[in-house]
Amino acid sequence: MCEANAYFKSNGQEVLFMESVDVIEPYEDGLKLVDIFGRQKFVRAKIKDMTLLNHRIVLEETVGFKHDTE
Amino acid sequence: MCEANAYFKSNGQEVLFMESVDVIEPYEDGLKLVDIFGRQKFVRAKIKDMTLLNHRIVLEETVGFKHDTE
Repeated sequence: MCEANAYFKSNGQEVLFMESVDVIEPYEDGLKLVDIFGRQKFVRAKIKDMTLLNHRIVLEETVGFKHDTE
Repeated sequence: MCEANAYFKSNGQEVLFMESVDVIEPYEDGLKLVDIFGRQKFVRAKIKDMTLLNHRIVLEETVGFKHDTE
């Protein structure tokens, strides 16, 4: 399937933040990510880049890293 | 494959902007979109939402609609 994994770039490393992301909704202060099971996370980050064929979303923090668990 | 089509919402209608998008790179003033053939477009828009399983990227204009053809 065509979901993607969301990673944070941290000290040159990529850290997995959320797997199997289907829906991405940007907001003023961050992003809502919803996975294929309907689980949601809100994160104060923006999209750095995405490569859909590689199922990759790379995020970068915006204002102080705070994320909701679902 | 897992590329997606990019649409603009215009007067309640969705207008196809670019097919088979693989890479998305947000910039301060817009987005660079690259398709599976390597063709690039830059557009003064931001992502409204994305549903990867439906291969859909919905864009919304930011400052005056200007897009580069590749």
